[in-house]
Amino acid sequence: MANAVLYDYFRSSASYRVRIALNLKGVEYEQRSINLASGAQKDSAFRRLNPQGLVPMLEIDGHRLTQSLAIIVYLDQKFPEPPLMPADLADSAHVRALAMAVACDIHPLNNLRVLKYLRGPLGISEEAKDEWYRHWVTEGLAALEEMARPHAGAFLFGDAPTIADICLVPQLYNARRFSVPLTDYPTLRRADETASAHAAFAAAHPDRQEQ
Amino acid sequence: MANAVLYDYFRSSASYRVRIALNLKGVEYEQRSINLASGAQKDSAFRRLNPQGLVPMLEIDGHRLTQSLAIIVYLDQKFPEPPLMPADLADSAHVRALAMAVACDIHPLNNLRVLKYLRGPLGISEEAKDEWYRHWVTEGLAALEEMARPHAGAFLFGDAPTIADICLVPQLYNARRFSVPLTDYPTLRRADETASAHAAFAAAHPDRQEQ
Repeated sequence: MANAVLYDYFRSSASYRVRIALNLKGVEYEQRSINLASGAQKDSAFRRLNPQGLVPMLEIDGHRLTQSLAIIVYLDQKFPEPPLMPADLADSAHVRALAMAVACDIHPLNNLRVLKYLRGPLGISEEAKDEWYRHWVTEGLAALEEMARPHAGAFLFGDAPTIADICLVPQLYNARRFSVPLTDYPTLRRADETASAHAAFAAAHPDRQEQ
Repeated sequence: MANAVLYDYFRSSASYRVRIALNLKGVEYEQRSINLASGAQKDSAFRRLNPQGLVPMLEIDGHRLTQSLAIIVYLDQKFPEPPLMPADLADSAHVRALAMAVACDIHPLNNLRVLKYLRGPLGISEEAKDEWYRHWVTEGLAALEEMARPHAGAFLFGDAPTIADICLVPQLYNARRFSVPLTDYPTLRRADETASAHAAFAAAHPDRQEQ
């Protein structure tokens, strides 16, 4: 029997993060796909479970947890091995800052609901919408590359996966879908390559989910 | 002598959050104002200190910390009293989720660099920009109200301030600047009112900073 139920969507970056964390922690989970493209997250049945109407949501230990980073911190505290953040407080703050540089400064500007608002109510052209996407991803990844470089190893921080890699991999998957060139970010590409070869990351990939 | 140096801007919501946390923890700090309106965060002198070119940045204990929520978690771990998150893991996940519903789902869409991109490169009218602002704030606050209600007290979670209130108060300050009606969010208004009367929150208010 599964220990948890994950409401997710194969292409949702935030869902992808939580899948990676669950896999790293070895927590078995059932998936319930909420089709964001068709607006299923706005159905009253789902909103009764999660008033924000966003995925991911994780049912675990009798709780309904939302917000990908809050879910991941919960998993990290509940199942301490392997740790997703370094033990040292300043190192941990650095790793959290890398994660948030993705989760607060890049991803929110580029998710589906925002791109839909640009095309719909704002009447922006497809081309200008893509340019918006690339602008924020490029600016954000350039900053992330600089931030990460001093402490990066095979992963974004040292040689083991952290919450920073959990945020990076879905963001680069997304960037590639929009043909954003990644040549200027060798540190990010190295961590992405290492992580993508890891079974926990590979099993969380959108191509391996129900669509 | 101050224990920390905070690079901030009086109206930056993320800076406002860190000021509140420093005040709650009783950490003395010097402030260095980086004028976001005139683009000082992009100056090479500041970017050498912080490659992301964003405020807030906190120099403390020989470290340069960035990303408001990562800074606040660091402060909470380093100076445990008063705690900014509940001890119970699921309660803590709930409080973090409330904070992130502001920091990841509302604020990133409405900060100055995004509003400038809408007006500049996208050529959106002032009116459509304001409508964009109100759209995301209204959608976000409505969800936050629903999320917060079951566990709210005088503050967003129970009767003591948490990281959720630290995110709420600057967001409502911002919402009022854009004349977003707040009548539908009684739980949020009650927490905001309680928090605003608290000395640590009051001293962090933009009107009480160097401008």
